[in-house]
Amino acid sequence: MEIHILASEAKQASISLAAIDSQIKNNALQAIAQALKAKTADIVAANKEDLERSEKENLGAPLLKRLKYDASKIKETIEGLTSLMMLPEPVGETISATELDKDLELFKVSCPIGVIGVIFESRPDALVQISSLCLKSSNAVILKGGSEALKTNKILAEIIAEASEKAGIPKGWIQLIETRSDVNEMLKCDEFIDLIIPRGSNEFVQYIMNNSNIPVLGHADGICHVYVDKDADLDMAVAVTTDSKCQYVAVCNAAETVLVHESIAQEFLPKLKASLDKFNVEMFGCEKTQAIIAVKPATEQDWKTEYLDYKISIKVVSSLDEAIAHINKYSSKHTESIITKDKMAVAKFMSLIDSGNVYWNASTRFCDGFRYGLGAEVGISTNKIHARGPVGLEGLLIYKWLMKGNGHIVSDYANGHKSFTHKNSKKKFSI
Amino acid sequence: MEIHILASEAKQASISLAAIDSQIKNNALQAIAQALKAKTADIVAANKEDLERSEKENLGAPLLKRLKYDASKIKETIEGLTSLMMLPEPVGETISATELDKDLELFKVSCPIGVIGVIFESRPDALVQISSLCLKSSNAVILKGGSEALKTNKILAEIIAEASEKAGIPKGWIQLIETRSDVNEMLKCDEFIDLIIPRGSNEFVQYIMNNSNIPVLGHADGICHVYVDKDADLDMAVAVTTDSKCQYVAVCNAAETVLVHESIAQEFLPKLKASLDKFNVEMFGCEKTQAIIAVKPATEQDWKTEYLDYKISIKVVSSLDEAIAHINKYSSKHTESIITKDKMAVAKFMSLIDSGNVYWNASTRFCDGFRYGLGAEVGISTNKIHARGPVGLEGLLIYKWLMKGNGHIVSDYANGHKSFTHKNSKKKFSI
Repeated sequence: MEIHILASEAKQASISLAAIDSQIKNNALQAIAQALKAKTADIVAANKEDLERSEKENLGAPLLKRLKYDASKIKETIEGLTSLMMLPEPVGETISATELDKDLELFKVSCPIGVIGVIFESRPDALVQISSLCLKSSNAVILKGGSEALKTNKILAEIIAEASEKAGIPKGWIQLIETRSDVNEMLKCDEFIDLIIPRGSNEFVQYIMNNSNIPVLGHADGICHVYVDKDADLDMAVAVTTDSKCQYVAVCNAAETVLVHESIAQEFLPKLKASLDKFNVEMFGCEKTQAIIAVKPATEQDWKTEYLDYKISIKVVSSLDEAIAHINKYSSKHTESIITKDKMAVAKFMSLIDSGNVYWNASTRFCDGFRYGLGAEVGISTNKIHARGPVGLEGLLIYKWLMKGNGHIVSDYANGHKSFTHKNSKKKFSI
Repeated sequence: MEIHILASEAKQASISLAAIDSQIKNNALQAIAQALKAKTADIVAANKEDLERSEKENLGAPLLKRLKYDASKIKETIEGLTSLMMLPEPVGETISATELDKDLELFKVSCPIGVIGVIFESRPDALVQISSLCLKSSNAVILKGGSEALKTNKILAEIIAEASEKAGIPKGWIQLIETRSDVNEMLKCDEFIDLIIPRGSNEFVQYIMNNSNIPVLGHADGICHVYVDKDADLDMAVAVTTDSKCQYVAVCNAAETVLVHESIAQEFLPKLKASLDKFNVEMFGCEKTQAIIAVKPATEQDWKTEYLDYKISIKVVSSLDEAIAHINKYSSKHTESIITKDKMAVAKFMSLIDSGNVYWNASTRFCDGFRYGLGAEVGISTNKIHARGPVGLEGLLIYKWLMKGNGHIVSDYANGHKSFTHKNSKKKFSI
């Protein structure tokens, strides 16, 4: 089907989905869970096809592992759906209420964004997670998964569409597109699509951002920093830096650069090297680092590089200010951590660092929707507007201003016959 | 000065502005108010130059009226600054707090967006209002005003910069650019500017949206609707429709189309016509309207037109559903009002209409930051993300996720040695 027709169907569905009863959405989530359980064998069979084809096409072992979707992973997915069902209704919540005048009341009420386009990588469980978050938040969704997972994504999308539509969700709310050229068509559908969330490589996200008038929420680079301050507990600093770098290297919240205060560099760097050597991490250091430990020389390019690998760049800085300036210059504004016992340094670091996630004595790897307690995430945003960091249900919502009057007209206020009271109110919106 | 240098100065200032003390900001607002008072004569003189030049250039009377900035308007501006001072500090507010585990706490804390580019029309008081909202929310701002107000804008920006910087606000936080080609340069500064808020004509806003990678917050069209339901109080409907259309025609929240339920059209339309005739409103109606009152025929184009004039289009609809479908098809998603006594119809209208502001028995002209009690506004947004409707202080803020740990690493949770507690907390963020 042509992409703009499919997008217009999603838009059409999104209108009535915005007004749908909470119980119908939760019933649909339950129906999806039951259908996934009942059709586990079919899903595993489709996934097996994808795995076999991808093996033949020499997909790397880590990607094959991510592609695999077996009974135990399906069970986890079903558990995720159940916890999503239990979350309170996010739509229609009164965010604020103001009495503008007698019988003239203004409410700011949460509502869905509309139609979300999500482009995601090879993990098939992402399809269920993203579409269920969209359903719970009353958004229609257009999904494009990794081509490796073609068959798995197809059966999952069919199961979700069938189960949810039978439960009363408007037909067309979930749409699956399959090719890269479909994505290009989707980028032109600004009449129907309200937000695009691309996940994937830096180049790909950048491409999306440069080729659409539709707002994009996401992150391109993930250049995260750990700053080891002069008042750091050095053992803690070694442990946190090692975890930030090595716990999982192929992800956006892994650290790429460690900044070390010069007054503890002599003592800290050999300890850090000993720890990173256990993971065979390749180290690139500034001149001062090179004078203390055996590392390759770092170039300007290293400060700008997201290795996504067992590689790290190291810079010795002469002050907290220099560390902050380096991070604000080179960071992708994702996640940065300071290791220190000095509360003044923490306060300065946290207020001056212009990144979405700023930590004190904790690993950058914590930046994740599940770990944050958001239930799940549709992606991580380094945008400066709408939503930052892991984006869960809340990032899929916006608000409407709803006003109840009794024939109120502006002339009366412009003429001075009436004046506004502007009283904050605790009322919840109701008709 | 080159625009990208000026933008980089604003970016630089925005970093320390994000961490500045509340008292310094309020002192600066007070200093600005005092300076405006002390320099009233100079401002009026500069404004007189603009008025004389614009008169010679045959600027229309309504625009000349908007351009005029005299002592009494300056006094109003100063009162606005004083009420902004009294508002609570918007930056650093804890939006939510979660205990992830023992000694591992996550906070969502409000922070400024960074650097805002605002392009506004001829009213010089807009310059003070916009820059003071940016200051209170700790954002740096790049301003481009109407060329008619060149001299007035220049002296105002100088007064604000001097007074605020003397009070301790980082130099460079407010920048004024003057030409259309400066604007084009600004649109390329996505490295330094985080958000653009354009105010002005539909074509101009559309141009900005199509020519920048920087996120844009604003509205192009303002095609607002009044729907007169079958259960409307007809006198109220006449009054609200007349106010929505005629109270001020040259603005985005004026109504352009009225939809009338067929069962009351026969009685309502002559009353409406009698009222609109007093303002010499030109009426364009559908065939059913033409059969009841003397109007010009409306074409498809009329439903898509923002007249910004004493003109209105009228359509008779056979149901609430038809009214909702018409609005969702033709509206610019700004403001729509339903006039009815039927609560079921209100509930349906408010949940299905996909616009930022949806009213019941009230004039569309209420859509405004001051009337909403937001203090002031930097503009009105028809975006579907970040902020909708009148955008005040809140729309100039975003948040950071701040985490306090004690050496916590992700390995411990991945290995199952530790598990998350995810307890909601009432704590406010502090070091």
